Amino acid sequence: MAKLYFRYGAMNSGKSTALIQVAHNYEERGQRVLIVKPAVDTKSPAVLSRIGVDRVVDVIAAPDAPLRRLVLDEPRADCVLVDEAQFLSPAQVDDLFRLAVEDGVPVIAYGLRTDHRTRGFPGSIRLMELAHSIEELKTICRCGRKAVLNARSVGGAFTREGDQIAIEGEVDYESMCGRCYVRTLGWP
Amino acid sequence: MAKLYFRYGAMNSGKSTALIQVAHNYEERGQRVLIVKPAVDTKSPAVLSRIGVDRVVDVIAAPDAPLRRLVLDEPRADCVLVDEAQFLSPAQVDDLFRLAVEDGVPVIAYGLRTDHRTRGFPGSIRLMELAHSIEELKTICRCGRKAVLNARSVGGAFTREGDQIAIEGEVDYESMCGRCYVRTLGWP
Amino acid sequence: MAKLYFRYGAMNSGKSTALIQVAHNYEERGQRVLIVKPAVDTKSPAVLSRIGVDRVVDVIAAPDAPLRRLVLDEPRADCVLVDEAQFLSPAQVDDLFRLAVEDGVPVIAYGLRTDHRTRGFPGSIRLMELAHSIEELKTICRCGRKAVLNARSVGGAFTREGDQIAIEGEVDYESMCGRCYVRTLGWP
Amino acid sequence: MAKLYFRYGAMNSGKSTALIQVAHNYEERGQRVLIVKPAVDTKSPAVLSRIGVDRVVDVIAAPDAPLRRLVLDEPRADCVLVDEAQFLSPAQVDDLFRLAVEDGVPVIAYGLRTDHRTRGFPGSIRLMELAHSIEELKTICRCGRKAVLNARSVGGAFTREGDQIAIEGEVDYESMCGRCYVRTLGWP
Repeated sequence: MAKLYFRYGAMNSGKSTALIQVAHNYEERGQRVLIVKPAVDTKSPAVLSRIGVDRVVDVIAAPDAPLRRLVLDEPRADCVLVDEAQFLSPAQVDDLFRLAVEDGVPVIAYGLRTDHRTRGFPGSIRLMELAHSIEELKTICRCGRKAVLNARSVGGAFTREGDQIAIEGEVDYESMCGRCYVRTLGWP
Repeated sequence: MAKLYFRYGAMNSGKSTALIQVAHNYEERGQRVLIVKPAVDTKSPAVLSRIGVDRVVDVIAAPDAPLRRLVLDEPRADCVLVDEAQFLSPAQVDDLFRLAVEDGVPVIAYGLRTDHRTRGFPGSIRLMELAHSIEELKTICRCGRKAVLNARSVGGAFTREGDQIAIEGEVDYESMCGRCYVRTLGWP
Repeated sequence: MAKLYFRYGAMNSGKSTALIQVAHNYEERGQRVLIVKPAVDTKSPAVLSRIGVDRVVDVIAAPDAPLRRLVLDEPRADCVLVDEAQFLSPAQVDDLFRLAVEDGVPVIAYGLRTDHRTRGFPGSIRLMELAHSIEELKTICRCGRKAVLNARSVGGAFTREGDQIAIEGEVDYESMCGRCYVRTLGWP
Repeated sequence: MAKLYFRYGAMNSGKSTALIQVAHNYEERGQRVLIVKPAVDTKSPAVLSRIGVDRVVDVIAAPDAPLRRLVLDEPRADCVLVDEAQFLSPAQVDDLFRLAVEDGVPVIAYGLRTDHRTRGFPGSIRLMELAHSIEELKTICRCGRKAVLNARSVGGAFTREGDQIAIEGEVDYESMCGRCYVRTLGWP
């Protein structure tokens, strides 16, 4: 039976790099991957890694798109890879689970765990509920510890304000350990 | 820095046994554990394992109890162990995170991931959002695959009906893999 | 395809308890487990846990016993569980790998990683080379950190001397973190 | 306390890409990494990833080089990253462990687990014995399962012959699952 994997990590933990590497591994074996990205991420219709590699996306999924149908309408994939999976709707995560369990297609979803206020994204929460395997991609805090939370800043000032999804360029993020986050932003 | 661990597993995966073993390991070293259990679990004021060992609980926490305060009011613990952690309130999970991050007390919380309709418990969702380490305790489905979901039955008939928390004895549970769950209960 | 799992841990990390719990989980589902123990472990022909549960062993394997043959000669097992797996010969670990890969029987082997001088046991090294999944059972050092090494003492004095396998009762062990081990015993 | 991590994977699992990503993460935070590579790997004095990024190595370590001394003689590193760690000598792995445990420098070593005959490299075996954390980087077999072994071919023919370390270009490798490996090469 195929499985649904959720590989989560804080901002800048290398999720897109990992996705591109896995795609490369499959294709090197002559296998076919299908790369999915939620439409809400307006940065780019590509998977962009910070170490300078990128990759075209096969399916841009609007929030209410029938993801299982979209994937099954494509030529058979040996693996579905999802970038920015936190932006999926819960129903789309259900679709990914069913693609694995009922249709036999392995799915690896990469995404953030929580927003700047430590709250899960709807897609992440559903992935945490359903994934057969939950794996962390680690990165470090400014203090050298493992980063687990994402702090938002606007104009250099850290803030808990604003929507869960912010317009790119108007805010910045820094991944932090729990202690640095609490010291910087307090605990609500 | 101390950490918050969430060790989740389907019904009957051995969570209470694991908790009792960890308590034993600490105490064998002359260290002190504090065992916490949410009050909502009315089965017993003890940790009960299915292989025949049990253990007295130190703190029974009502849903609105200030858990961080309760723990800090006890003699200093080297580790806090939480049984049935899915029944904690989200604010109590915040307390556990702060016990680890701000007070330096390691916390290991054992609990279910999802209910009989594949939905997370409030405590589990918050643990998935905040835990420094998310680890699975595995058990098997009737078909031999890893079980990831919990199916409820009443009088021998599987059902998606009923409250998230059911009165003990009136319902039964069977942990299942995704495929067996879908075949038994469909997908809503 | 079935897999070979190596679940390793320092002394007193709860390996036997975990084995007994897994056996219980399988049997509760009406499935059959086969419990194997190397003959070199003369403590007992049973799996003994320190929290007070125990379990009869099905197959006691002498060092040169053809383990794959012994297992296949038994009634078909849904899972093979190995206690004290560090005492297996490398050829017996090959047998376990082939039981999983060629015969379709999942195998979960529990054992120590290293001896009192930080050297792997022959069985452990081979398990580390071949296992599909390597998982740690954690326990703590006297200082509260995770224990990774096993220190031996004779009459209360820590020592690096003696054979890899010592006569039970004449030596004691304490699982330690790297720092406490080096401070206690130096580094050769 | 700092830790020694061993991140192992079959051929072409993306170990060098992962190393380069981690180096990037540290440097983005203004922290300093030190990249080490054993001299035995004659391919290049750089870390080369198959997705098109590379990275200069700071320390090329001959087999008998005193690695702990070499690292401590460099400006203080926030993390030591080791490429092709399977080629380290066991004594050099001891050095890495002591760098973590006694000198407080985290070390992440990336390497193969086993050679073309399923035997561990001396460096890998020692890393498996000592690492605080053993983590797998996964890749797939031609059949779609997870690859765990490395098959060697010469001129298109698979073989178990030859030295553990072969001259680059004269042999090829394919990472395989256990079943495909046994079907291709038998079991000795």
